Amino acid sequence: MEIDELCVKTLRCLVSDMIHNARSGHPGSALGLAPALHILFSKFINFDKKWINRDRFLLGPGHASTILYAILHLYTGNLKMEDLKQFRRYGSLTPGSPEASITEDIEVTTGPLGLSVGYAAGMGCAEAHLEARFNRPNFPIFNHKVFAVISDGEMMEGPQAESASWIGHQRLDNLVCIYDSNNITINGTTDIAFTEDVMKRYEAYGWKVLEVKNGNTDLKEIENAIKQAIEIKGYPVLIKLNTTIGYGSDDANTTKIHGTPFNDEEIKKLKQNLGADPNATFFVPQEVYDYYKQIRERTQQKVEQWNKMFAEYKNQYPKEYEELQKIINPHYTIEEFKKFMPTSNINDVIATRVSSGRILNILKDHLPGLIGGSGDLTPSVCTALKGEKDFQKGCREGRMIEYGIREHAMQCIASGISYYRLPGLIPFTATFLVFYQYAFGAMRVAAIDRLKQIHILTHDSIGLGQDGATHQNIENFAMLRSLPHITLFRPCDYLETSACYSLGLAERKGPIMLALSRQNAPPVPGSSFDGALHGAYIIKDSPNPKLIFVATGTEVYLALKTSELLDVETRIVSMPSTQVFEEQPDEYKRKVLPGNVPTISIEAGVRLGWERYSHFHFGVDSFGCSASGEKMYELFNLTPEKCAERAKKVLDYFKDKPIPDLSPRPTF
Amino acid sequence: MEIDELCVKTLRCLVSDMIHNARSGHPGSALGLAPALHILFSKFINFDKKWINRDRFLLGPGHASTILYAILHLYTGNLKMEDLKQFRRYGSLTPGSPEASITEDIEVTTGPLGLSVGYAAGMGCAEAHLEARFNRPNFPIFNHKVFAVISDGEMMEGPQAESASWIGHQRLDNLVCIYDSNNITINGTTDIAFTEDVMKRYEAYGWKVLEVKNGNTDLKEIENAIKQAIEIKGYPVLIKLNTTIGYGSDDANTTKIHGTPFNDEEIKKLKQNLGADPNATFFVPQEVYDYYKQIRERTQQKVEQWNKMFAEYKNQYPKEYEELQKIINPHYTIEEFKKFMPTSNINDVIATRVSSGRILNILKDHLPGLIGGSGDLTPSVCTALKGEKDFQKGCREGRMIEYGIREHAMQCIASGISYYRLPGLIPFTATFLVFYQYAFGAMRVAAIDRLKQIHILTHDSIGLGQDGATHQNIENFAMLRSLPHITLFRPCDYLETSACYSLGLAERKGPIMLALSRQNAPPVPGSSFDGALHGAYIIKDSPNPKLIFVATGTEVYLALKTSELLDVETRIVSMPSTQVFEEQPDEYKRKVLPGNVPTISIEAGVRLGWERYSHFHFGVDSFGCSASGEKMYELFNLTPEKCAERAKKVLDYFKDKPIPDLSPRPTF
Repeated sequence: MEIDELCVKTLRCLVSDMIHNARSGHPGSALGLAPALHILFSKFINFDKKWINRDRFLLGPGHASTILYAILHLYTGNLKMEDLKQFRRYGSLTPGSPEASITEDIEVTTGPLGLSVGYAAGMGCAEAHLEARFNRPNFPIFNHKVFAVISDGEMMEGPQAESASWIGHQRLDNLVCIYDSNNITINGTTDIAFTEDVMKRYEAYGWKVLEVKNGNTDLKEIENAIKQAIEIKGYPVLIKLNTTIGYGSDDANTTKIHGTPFNDEEIKKLKQNLGADPNATFFVPQEVYDYYKQIRERTQQKVEQWNKMFAEYKNQYPKEYEELQKIINPHYTIEEFKKFMPTSNINDVIATRVSSGRILNILKDHLPGLIGGSGDLTPSVCTALKGEKDFQKGCREGRMIEYGIREHAMQCIASGISYYRLPGLIPFTATFLVFYQYAFGAMRVAAIDRLKQIHILTHDSIGLGQDGATHQNIENFAMLRSLPHITLFRPCDYLETSACYSLGLAERKGPIMLALSRQNAPPVPGSSFDGALHGAYIIKDSPNPKLIFVATGTEVYLALKTSELLDVETRIVSMPSTQVFEEQPDEYKRKVLPGNVPTISIEAGVRLGWERYSHFHFGVDSFGCSASGEKMYELFNLTPEKCAERAKKVLDYFKDKPIPDLSPRPTF
Repeated sequence: MEIDELCVKTLRCLVSDMIHNARSGHPGSALGLAPALHILFSKFINFDKKWINRDRFLLGPGHASTILYAILHLYTGNLKMEDLKQFRRYGSLTPGSPEASITEDIEVTTGPLGLSVGYAAGMGCAEAHLEARFNRPNFPIFNHKVFAVISDGEMMEGPQAESASWIGHQRLDNLVCIYDSNNITINGTTDIAFTEDVMKRYEAYGWKVLEVKNGNTDLKEIENAIKQAIEIKGYPVLIKLNTTIGYGSDDANTTKIHGTPFNDEEIKKLKQNLGADPNATFFVPQEVYDYYKQIRERTQQKVEQWNKMFAEYKNQYPKEYEELQKIINPHYTIEEFKKFMPTSNINDVIATRVSSGRILNILKDHLPGLIGGSGDLTPSVCTALKGEKDFQKGCREGRMIEYGIREHAMQCIASGISYYRLPGLIPFTATFLVFYQYAFGAMRVAAIDRLKQIHILTHDSIGLGQDGATHQNIENFAMLRSLPHITLFRPCDYLETSACYSLGLAERKGPIMLALSRQNAPPVPGSSFDGALHGAYIIKDSPNPKLIFVATGTEVYLALKTSELLDVETRIVSMPSTQVFEEQPDEYKRKVLPGNVPTISIEAGVRLGWERYSHFHFGVDSFGCSASGEKMYELFNLTPEKCAERAKKVLDYFKDKPIPDLSPRPTF
């Protein structure tokens, strides 16, 4: 294995050069991981980003990005040496943390710790599901593996624990996690805070566990462990890989080496320690390039074989092929959606969560790649897919996922499914809006990468009633509007719910969130599918309005009822999405909300952000309490009578004052 | 144990009556938990909310609140029968989920699942710490236990896993968790999503585990297990309590019983099944009251003995007593803080995280109950307390907590310390601002209960540089301003950091969050301790300003530098806390930000919310990327030159337009 040792040495030098050159970065685990990543990529992984049956690889500890960039430089060659030299620089393909939106060969964005096991879960779920639905005898369209590297730090994180428990329950055996155990974190040795028996814990989850005693230099031991892991059927596998952080450096096995770049002297010393030329920088011996060229060719042969098989599959299984194409290469347009989605209202007085449930059941028949479920709240969040089964061991074709009461893992699993990168494979999650905060860590990354996914968030405010303050969202409207790339929808009725789903799936780039009511929401006269597509639109008008209400969700109907009590010309604007509205042309925005007419926003949540659209906000600026939904609305003066009374005060207030103009201002 | 059986039956009938009377609620686990809670309270717990050495009890599954209310009715009597009849009604002492801010005898607010193990960790930590510092031979001032009940649902949640791992590491042996395993959740039997071996997992964490096979009727088995758990030294203990959800009901062991109230017939049937009078409602036999009266008296004797001991302690250990008084009964005023906190600036050009570190080290000498640490980022977040040791097994007097890389547990542990309810025992946590999102679930509950705690959140925006978008907060400023009871501070320099800590600790009711810079922040000419106490104040003025900059944190200095490039009379307002500013009198607010002068806000974060204070926002409305901090500021046009250029455009824009008046409007 001389060539392997040369490869490992080369990788170690490369990562050190990158960090030294950037004058910043994290050498520790990059040095420690070089042997495992070399063995994995050179002997097991078949990776070509354009191939749907490629093996997936995730580097959980994103701060070790250099080792991944270095490997990719050798393996696919899409990252050039020049790219490695630009590590951590503006505009480079080699940012500090791996970012899937920036570097083609990176599957997932990592850096925030503890999420990658959940991403792996989602990818493993995607593979198993597609395998069950589309493989046919002699046609293993999907049969790849998912490999994830995770770190000590990640092993402490909750979403990792939730995800590992879910994977263990699912007995996903297409998944191998390599746990890089180097026993060092920023504050010192891990034993200051972390002395659990990780292998025993994973066994308790239902995993098989293996151990590599010497992950620093025993390449054969690493290879054997991975081989064994792949051969284990019926279980996910964790390989505990014992490594030395900063292997090769004089500072190996210290916390300093985690995130301190080398100075000129240190890097020379490191190379000497490794038996490399201390004066060569960014150097790759030709044998190493040649060796990886062979590996690339091996993969390319597999891709070609697969392509031939897939062409034959098309002949033999045209129906399956066509269905799969809808998942691989879907074409979503609003016009398409309008053909099957409801575009007129119904008379039923139902909660928007119920509307959502009905619409989801329409969608499932037209989007064969729609897959998901709830965090153990299916009857409450209305996400049962009629006629579909649970995704479980022995029933991988099931399209309903039981995430368990694991909101953060739920988001990670959904993201893993999105990161699988078949655009028509669309995950959905569901819980109460307030509990979605448990998942914000992973949600943020999904936003960065504009992952296509649906989050069904019900019981969206004080209207849920008696479970009290801990269950009543008031702030998540504002919170979810603060994140770029996310679209929050709060539809007022069945029709708007249909429009929001349609727009969200057809046109929005990034996660869509639906805030839905627990309580009944009557169909709102004037609500419109096409109107909702603009984010905000007029549902009731008068020739010369003296007062405007802008409202969302269940409060649109309240605004309407309020206007009936007022003896003044009133316009009512429904605003299912502030984010969509913001993207409309200024002219449209001015037409809907001219800004120089007294404007009141009504939303059963905090005021923050509403100053942009209204002069006064009728909302909820303190925590709720345990009482019936109606009582809650009464308490916060959100009844037609109270709102009418308050609106009169607003009009009085502006009687002798200029009206501050809220119309859109340019960006400078 | 006839009386015990009568008590259990009585409790089961009471919870059923409460839910039936409310026509809503969760009978399932309340019925299942009756035996364990009766045994625990009648034979082990000594509880008197006013007694600092009381045993602590936490009910993790808050939806089972009725059983806790029923027990408290018997045990302390502070909840009257009338209160039980008001279950889930507005204004009652018996809300749907237990809320510590509403019901005196409730230690912690629960309902959101998975947090209670972390609260127990914090309480156990508090007890062990105070025991080590204040107990003296023959003076066991602190020697109580912490008992927590947790549920299947909680066992799936990540913060539970993080907390249990931390507790196991700490070997906290003052803590017993009773795991109510009834194998039913909302979606069905737990085995649809949760098949791990929980006991093995807890063993892997370092806990001792016991099991009660028949938690429904074998009161002796329950008693023995708890007794054994208490006797185990050196380890935390988990008791797996096997129960039947909805025990006694015809719907026992179904998912229906989790959250469906009984109808008239069902409740009669239930009482018959239990051997109770089907026609008696809200009925407690006198023997049961008498029995609990004895128990109450037992506790009262213990309290009296303790009081005597504590009086003697005061004599024998006056110094310790005095120190402890500072923790039990502190008096914080701004005037006090001004005596020891920096009230003038320094010349050092240091990051506000460094300022925070220095100030924390001043505080620790004056607040003997200050205790905390970081999520494995101590050198980066500057939270080392000089001369203080880590809180660890064998060193319980340590005031520095190693939370590990467990942000959500970190928040839970801090909340547990706050819930310990010694007002001078003040926990702090620390991580990067962006990663605090992992902890939002538990943070929200801390906000509801206005827990006194400090969160040190550094690397607060794009200025952190090369770790890229995943590490660069842009939205948390808005998010943290959206939650009631929380105060977000973003100080501009050393002096303001001192003022924010002082105000936060002396006067704010609820968690305080400090957003602090990674990059250097020069002392800002004009920054003022007293000014910062108003949330916003003028740091540079001109007699007749034509332009106002309002800025926070590191952007205050940027505003100042910008103004120097402008040939226009400019006012600069530093706004370390929007929330504090909002509470000032309108007159003050109008003086600082008149609203009718062109106003530009500068904050390296999203615009959301700034519309309230400014006509234009110079900020960051998209995700950042991997580049140096300076480059990032340049990219987002946040340099003095760029800001001056943009400010001129603002002035041009308003040349021929009325200026929309932003001054405070009344609340209707």
